[in-house]
Amino acid sequence: MKKMGLLGPKGTHSEEAAIYLKKFLADEVELIIFSEIFEVLSAVEEGKIDSGFVPVENSLEGSINITLDTLARTDFLQVTHELIWPIHNYLMTKAGVTEIKKIFSHAQPISQCRKYLRKNFPGAEIISTSSTARAAEIVAQSEIFDGAAAICSKRAGELNNLVEVAAEIQDNLANSTRFFEVERENKNLRGDKVLIICQIDGKKSGALYEILEEFALRKVNMTRIESRPARTKLGEYIFFFDLETDIDEKILNESVEAVRKKSIWLKNLGKFPVIAAQK
Amino acid sequence: MKKMGLLGPKGTHSEEAAIYLKKFLADEVELIIFSEIFEVLSAVEEGKIDSGFVPVENSLEGSINITLDTLARTDFLQVTHELIWPIHNYLMTKAGVTEIKKIFSHAQPISQCRKYLRKNFPGAEIISTSSTARAAEIVAQSEIFDGAAAICSKRAGELNNLVEVAAEIQDNLANSTRFFEVERENKNLRGDKVLIICQIDGKKSGALYEILEEFALRKVNMTRIESRPARTKLGEYIFFFDLETDIDEKILNESVEAVRKKSIWLKNLGKFPVIAAQK
Repeated sequence: MKKMGLLGPKGTHSEEAAIYLKKFLADEVELIIFSEIFEVLSAVEEGKIDSGFVPVENSLEGSINITLDTLARTDFLQVTHELIWPIHNYLMTKAGVTEIKKIFSHAQPISQCRKYLRKNFPGAEIISTSSTARAAEIVAQSEIFDGAAAICSKRAGELNNLVEVAAEIQDNLANSTRFFEVERENKNLRGDKVLIICQIDGKKSGALYEILEEFALRKVNMTRIESRPARTKLGEYIFFFDLETDIDEKILNESVEAVRKKSIWLKNLGKFPVIAAQK
Repeated sequence: MKKMGLLGPKGTHSEEAAIYLKKFLADEVELIIFSEIFEVLSAVEEGKIDSGFVPVENSLEGSINITLDTLARTDFLQVTHELIWPIHNYLMTKAGVTEIKKIFSHAQPISQCRKYLRKNFPGAEIISTSSTARAAEIVAQSEIFDGAAAICSKRAGELNNLVEVAAEIQDNLANSTRFFEVERENKNLRGDKVLIICQIDGKKSGALYEILEEFALRKVNMTRIESRPARTKLGEYIFFFDLETDIDEKILNESVEAVRKKSIWLKNLGKFPVIAAQK
C-alpha cells in the first residue's frame, strides 16, 4: 500500500484531485492528510510516506511558492506525475443565513473570486484561512447571526452540511490548478515533460538569454518559465523550466547538460506524464 | 498636498517605508490608509488619490501578485519611484504571556520566518491575518492565557503596547522589500530603471528567447524577469521586465519597440529612480 501525503482537511481541492489521480497509479494508495504543503514534502523527503501530492500552479493566481521553493532546495525529490485539475469555487453558508457579513477562504480562492466579492459583497469582511476545507469547518461552527460564508469546493461545503449561495464564482472560468506527485525516486521510462531547476548568475547581463539559446537552438519546447528569489539577496533568482519531451531524448539531454554548464547549479527533477482531468 | 494611498493599518512595513520615501518627494504628502493593495491602486486609477505606494517584491518570498496583476491590467498607471526597504521581523506579545500558543501574522512574514517558527514554536497554531499591523492589534486585544503573539515590525508592536520576545526572526537576514510609487502620470525626466510588461504568444516555441534577443543584442541590462498567468488559460503568461537605463536612451527605446512588435501587447510603465533605504 503506497502512502500519499496531501494538504487537508478532508474536502480540499487537493483531496478531490488526489482521489482522481489514484486510478492512474499502479499501486493501491492510502491518502494521508497533512496541514501544510511544506510538511507533505518534508515527509516524503524523510521517507515517512512514499509520495506527496501538492499544488504547483493555478491558472489565475500563478505559482504556489512553497512548492517551488521546497523543490528547489531539496536534493531528494523527483516529480513523477502532473495532474491538471479544473477548479470550481462555490459560496456556501449554513441554512438559515440571510445576510452574509463574513467570508472565509484560503488566500488563493479569495484572489480568484476578487471581482465577484467586490461586486456582490462589498461590505463583507474577508478572512483568510489555511485551506478552503478549514473555511467550511469554521462556517459550520458559526452561529446563524454571524452571517458567515465559505468559498470552497462543493464537496467541502456538503461535508460540513452547508448550502449553496452561488456556484462557479471565480472571476474567470479558465480556472485550473496543476498538481505534482512527488517521490524520492523517479522510475518513469516515458513522460510528457521534464522539470529543470537552476540558479544562474544574476550579475551577468544576458545570462538567461544564453540559457534559452541552448533550448532554442535544439528546438526544445519550453512550456513554462518561472523564477523565484534565490534567497541570497534581492535580484538573484532561481529559474524553473518545463520542457516537452516530444523530441529526440539525446538532444533534450544535450540541451540540459549545456544549460548545466552555464548555471551555478542545476537539478533535473525527472520526466513525468501529464494527466488532464475530465470532470 | 499630495495624497498617497498605502496598505494600513498604522504600523505596517508599508507605512514605515512610505514615511521614509516622503523626504525624497517634491510635494508635501498626506498618507491615506487603505485595507487592500487592490483598493490603493484602484483609487489612483480613479483619480481619488494622487499616488499609491505598494509592495512589489520581497527578497525571500518573491512577487506580490496582486500588485503585478493590477499593473498588467490597467492602462492608466505609471511607476514613478522604487524604494528598496530592509525588513526586520519581530515576535511580540502582551506583557505577562509566558507560553506562546498562537502566532498571528500576514502570510508573507509567516513564510519568511518558517524555519524559526518550526524550530522554536513547533506546537503553536499559526494564523494568517490581512497585515502585520492587524496581527499586532489582535494580540493586543487577546487575553494573557490565550498565549497570542504577533510577527510584525517593532513599530507595530509598540503602537499596540506589545513587548519583544525575539528580534530579527526571519530565516535569512537578506530580507528586503521593493515598493513602487504609482501615479497616473510619469513626469520623470531621468530614472534608473524602466518597467515593461508584455504578453507573448505562449504557443510559439522560442518566443521568449526572441524577446530576450532584442535586449541582449543591444546590451540592454535586464535586472529582473517575472511571469504571471495571462488569466486566459493555463500555459499563457504575461512577462515583466525591469531594464536598466544606463545606456543610450535611443537604443533602449529601440529595444522596447522591437519587443513590442514581437508581443501580443506591450505596456511601458515609464522610467523611475531607485532609492535604497539606509536604516
